[in-house]
Amino acid sequence: MKRILLVVAYDGTNYCGWQVQKNGETIEGVLNRELSALFGEEIQVIGASRTDSGVHALGNVAVFDTKSRMPGEKISYALNSRIPEDIRIQRSVEVDADFHPRKCACTKHYEYRILNREFELPCERLNTYFYRRPLDVERMRAACPYFLGEHDFKSFCSIHTQAETTVRTIYGLEVRQEGDLIRIQVSGNGFLYNMVRIIAGTLIQIGSGIREPEVVPDIIKSRDRQAAGPTAPAKGLTLLGMDFGK
Amino acid sequence: MKRILLVVAYDGTNYCGWQVQKNGETIEGVLNRELSALFGEEIQVIGASRTDSGVHALGNVAVFDTKSRMPGEKISYALNSRIPEDIRIQRSVEVDADFHPRKCACTKHYEYRILNREFELPCERLNTYFYRRPLDVERMRAACPYFLGEHDFKSFCSIHTQAETTVRTIYGLEVRQEGDLIRIQVSGNGFLYNMVRIIAGTLIQIGSGIREPEVVPDIIKSRDRQAAGPTAPAKGLTLLGMDFGK
Repeated sequence: MKRILLVVAYDGTNYCGWQVQKNGETIEGVLNRELSALFGEEIQVIGASRTDSGVHALGNVAVFDTKSRMPGEKISYALNSRIPEDIRIQRSVEVDADFHPRKCACTKHYEYRILNREFELPCERLNTYFYRRPLDVERMRAACPYFLGEHDFKSFCSIHTQAETTVRTIYGLEVRQEGDLIRIQVSGNGFLYNMVRIIAGTLIQIGSGIREPEVVPDIIKSRDRQAAGPTAPAKGLTLLGMDFGK
Repeated sequence: MKRILLVVAYDGTNYCGWQVQKNGETIEGVLNRELSALFGEEIQVIGASRTDSGVHALGNVAVFDTKSRMPGEKISYALNSRIPEDIRIQRSVEVDADFHPRKCACTKHYEYRILNREFELPCERLNTYFYRRPLDVERMRAACPYFLGEHDFKSFCSIHTQAETTVRTIYGLEVRQEGDLIRIQVSGNGFLYNMVRIIAGTLIQIGSGIREPEVVPDIIKSRDRQAAGPTAPAKGLTLLGMDFGK
């Protein structure tokens, strides 16, 4: 028996998120089914991030155990030849048998993409949030430092959470502009349910002039979901990757 | 009666190209149908570039005549509210009644996108050509100057062409690299059937070491489609835009 780690990229458009659902196809569901068929044994992956319906990934992580003798680094090729083209394994490697991607320290990196222009661009529609009203990126940047460090982010968590604690640490939060594309890049030791999308929704309010950058500390202090901005749409969000062992 | 110019962006993935076909939806077909319904008169657009099935556009151009009194610049909004989200009008403006987008001098700008890495990226799969074997961008760049200027590009034209002459002028051809994305950007006074895709296919052969950059003048001289490289897949190609009145 050995434990294999997969780095998984996907276009989340046509999936009901990562986690297996009764109704609808999921990334986890596809991986369980195709790995089981590939190795002829029942395989269940453990995912690092249970991304929501419509959210994309460049580098989500999953592990599974197998009796197969296939070398770890060959599994990516064998699996990619079986799964749909909107999921692609980027790497496969054998890891320690006790490695658990949700039970070890890790840094997660997310990006939220906003297309800020007069008219939508069809080729960008599936992985950006189209926002017509002009956004002032300097205002959004002025709000970023308030998020950094360890805080109770209860205001930035959907009420459906099962998390034991709502304290998280954000290591970095940057707003980059490339023409009419605005990228919000954030990294932290973990994120609450919808947290990145609520941060994005709040930064969009600030960038559009509805609220001031200086309001962020009060939003955090309130520990009240109603104090923060709306949850920005799933399709703008991509899980870029994660580093373990930090 | 007035003539309206539209700048049209589309994701070509789900269309049988620009030009109306008996079987299958086309960009032109959607525009004719929805403009006719919008204005209550039969409307037929004239497109500047009849892009192939699967080819994308940021700025294709079409004109049509209408009796409507709707101001030209409002038509983009009215039409966008009717058409599918994979087509978006970027601009609408009244032009001279004798302006014909295929009968006046113009410069067209195309981009061919290659994703050159070990594994495919799902979110890029619809508008890049995935090519695993490493490409040497410096070799591709070395081939570019041979294409510049006025030449008979018969070797870079699919045999199905209806063009009267195969002489065209290329004003610019550049290969840009951004990480594992390679962008071939070309502008000219017109392009033969599949010409950009055959140039891309030839540059890919050169970049992968199969052929030398210095072979390009001989390919051009031969006036033989067999001498050039393969036609690269449609999904990597985007019509960026065009300038009239040059």
